[in-house]
Amino acid sequence: MAPTEVTTRILRRLLASGVHSRAERLLARVHPADLAPLFADLTPEEIRTVVDLLFRQRRAAQTLRELPPEMLPTIFEAVDDARLAAVCGRLEIDDMLELFERVPEERHDPILALLPAEKQAELRKHELYAEGSAGRVMTTNILAVDEKLTAQEAIEKIRAFGEDTDAVLYLYVVDTEGRLEGVVPIRRLVASRPDRPVGEIMIREPVSASVDTDQEEVAQLVARYNLLAIPVTDLERRLLGVITVDDVIEVITEEATEDIYHLAGLDEEDRVFTPPSQSIRKRLPWQFLNLGAVFISAWVVGLFEQTLDKIVTLAVFMPVINGMGGNGGVQSLTVVTRAMALGEIEFSSGLRAVGKELLVGLVIGLVVGAAAGGIAWMWQGNPYLGFTLTAAMVVTLTVAGLLGAAVPVLLKALRQDPALGSGAIVVTITDAFGLFCFLGLGTLLLDRLA
Amino acid sequence: MAPTEVTTRILRRLLASGVHSRAERLLARVHPADLAPLFADLTPEEIRTVVDLLFRQRRAAQTLRELPPEMLPTIFEAVDDARLAAVCGRLEIDDMLELFERVPEERHDPILALLPAEKQAELRKHELYAEGSAGRVMTTNILAVDEKLTAQEAIEKIRAFGEDTDAVLYLYVVDTEGRLEGVVPIRRLVASRPDRPVGEIMIREPVSASVDTDQEEVAQLVARYNLLAIPVTDLERRLLGVITVDDVIEVITEEATEDIYHLAGLDEEDRVFTPPSQSIRKRLPWQFLNLGAVFISAWVVGLFEQTLDKIVTLAVFMPVINGMGGNGGVQSLTVVTRAMALGEIEFSSGLRAVGKELLVGLVIGLVVGAAAGGIAWMWQGNPYLGFTLTAAMVVTLTVAGLLGAAVPVLLKALRQDPALGSGAIVVTITDAFGLFCFLGLGTLLLDRLA
Repeated sequence: MAPTEVTTRILRRLLASGVHSRAERLLARVHPADLAPLFADLTPEEIRTVVDLLFRQRRAAQTLRELPPEMLPTIFEAVDDARLAAVCGRLEIDDMLELFERVPEERHDPILALLPAEKQAELRKHELYAEGSAGRVMTTNILAVDEKLTAQEAIEKIRAFGEDTDAVLYLYVVDTEGRLEGVVPIRRLVASRPDRPVGEIMIREPVSASVDTDQEEVAQLVARYNLLAIPVTDLERRLLGVITVDDVIEVITEEATEDIYHLAGLDEEDRVFTPPSQSIRKRLPWQFLNLGAVFISAWVVGLFEQTLDKIVTLAVFMPVINGMGGNGGVQSLTVVTRAMALGEIEFSSGLRAVGKELLVGLVIGLVVGAAAGGIAWMWQGNPYLGFTLTAAMVVTLTVAGLLGAAVPVLLKALRQDPALGSGAIVVTITDAFGLFCFLGLGTLLLDRLA
Repeated sequence: MAPTEVTTRILRRLLASGVHSRAERLLARVHPADLAPLFADLTPEEIRTVVDLLFRQRRAAQTLRELPPEMLPTIFEAVDDARLAAVCGRLEIDDMLELFERVPEERHDPILALLPAEKQAELRKHELYAEGSAGRVMTTNILAVDEKLTAQEAIEKIRAFGEDTDAVLYLYVVDTEGRLEGVVPIRRLVASRPDRPVGEIMIREPVSASVDTDQEEVAQLVARYNLLAIPVTDLERRLLGVITVDDVIEVITEEATEDIYHLAGLDEEDRVFTPPSQSIRKRLPWQFLNLGAVFISAWVVGLFEQTLDKIVTLAVFMPVINGMGGNGGVQSLTVVTRAMALGEIEFSSGLRAVGKELLVGLVIGLVVGAAAGGIAWMWQGNPYLGFTLTAAMVVTLTVAGLLGAAVPVLLKALRQDPALGSGAIVVTITDAFGLFCFLGLGTLLLDRLA
């Protein structure tokens, strides 16, 4: 569909030979959405030239909207305030705000001053909505009509509105106070008799989101009810804007990235082509936290130095306890946090999930622990060593299952992100506790193990 | 939006008191999409009764389409073949196939025999498309017209088609051979002059998917180009069907789940409310594989038993090496596999990502390793122990970064799923290699450490 690698090669050659007019024509044929992978393969110098060419084409607004965030700093550097203001002015309010937030702080005021007055006001109003709320993602470019309008009149309104906008998937019916009364899908409008009032064909009590609803919940509503757009209202149900399904897809993708990243202790802005220095800065705090966690395990092992001094073979099996416990905990954690992200469990069913994961951990601990104990027995020729390993694995995997499910349920009950930090907590406790059980039992059976 | 916990409680009371007519009325007011969380809190016996009530209401088709897959077995048990066939017959082909695949194998033939002949034929034809391909997800219920039709005539066609179908978001323009020539968004049709031929207002060369395209790629296309539906064609560009954005959202959600699950070594069907016995069966093979992996680490430690016998303190720091290396590897792996899932990197840029992650691993290894070494020195009072830990951590975290990025790039180049198994490979090699370096260096510095 998008033979980007070929395009990149041709583009490079055109840029190198200085034939900018041909490079410009080539760029004009590339869909804005296809420019991102193309940019990924260009040098900063080449990107600067391409950005110049794109801005000449007045396609910059659409292009900036489609580019991955980590490429924006390079582009902003290459463009002056006046140009950025011109581009911002051509975007819909949600896209404008998103772009504006990524512009370096010190350029905000100069750029804002260059925007038309009504755009300035709109931007300031939009900035009041909380980050990640429906208000931030909605577009205010909507078609709201009175219920007495006929289908034919509504169609004429749409004609006057222009065909270019995102928003005309539904017609919104409001009362004199601007309160949302119903929605009419355009296809239903088309299929209706021309003289019927829209109030008769509208869907009453449509699914809607409040302006302060979390964007993840909005996405779940759109996905659950198979909507193409969802109206956003204030507390008095006055229609403020609409969130379209393409923005919802972006939210779903973003939230999935966030969930995957949080399980690994990563920051969302730490992407594959983020400059190494920035990735390092983002990851270091987490790795230091992790260092503290693993030193708890080291401290636990230190408690049993005397035991290890007598039976050094116990050290051989420490990686078995850690590896299996960590894996079991992460599995339970993944199942539970994913179900939470998809809105599949509430608190009460969360507790049921904890019970299930505990049981699953126990059974897997028994089966895999027996196998591990058998191998250890055969390898080292000591049945007590095998027993110690089996017993420790049963306990460790049970605790791993329990914590893997309980930690996110608890975090969620405390209104924290269930994915962020759960992994570190689960693995730290499981590791330390598992080693404590294994080496503790080893100490008790010291005479048998020697 | 959906006060399910309250609804569940009322429903339970109504079922318990045997007032089925009132329970039926309550159910009629619940949106099919809201039944899933409700079902999660009912006993199997109660579910059976509810399914009975729902089937009486002829809403079963829509309901089954919305329910999470792990609930289907219970429901299928409660319903006989004739009823299931009746329900299947009311679904669109993609939903019908999806449902049919979940019915136990031995009931396929009896149910198929009860379907109308044309549904049987359609189902058999659809089953020929590969699993996970565009052909499997598409609906064939589309409106294709000739380019000479006027906008007004097209609108009348839509009226005749009925307003109920998913597919009427775009009108598809085909030539006499049925080859796709263009698409007309309904809103553009509405905004157009009634006497203009659709051939004049259609979008030419629309983005389309081939019938054997992977559903994940289809989802990426729809997301990238902000489409509401994407036409599916055969190799000769003949229009076969269409995939709508609601199905794309399902695919995106499914694929995100798959990616998250594969990183943790989980099977997609192992969900939060999958019966424990089934979860255990799904997880056991992976945990046995993992057991093999951790025994490699145990074997490496075993090689150094003599060293550990002399300097047991080394065992204390083994969890530090394992914990930090594993974490670093999983971070690199997560960044790279997520970028792959979002189609952000190709092979060449994948190699660049490997270089970056190696560098990031090296720097983090130096910084965190120095800190860990310092702590070890102060704790145990031996600078050589600190040096050993620092050196081993630098090597381990560098290798973790390298493998975390290189393993998925390699797996993808070999046309394997980059997420599945990567985690196990990366952590296994990193752990074993890290312990080898740490204990090996400890052996070399034996005199200084004693």
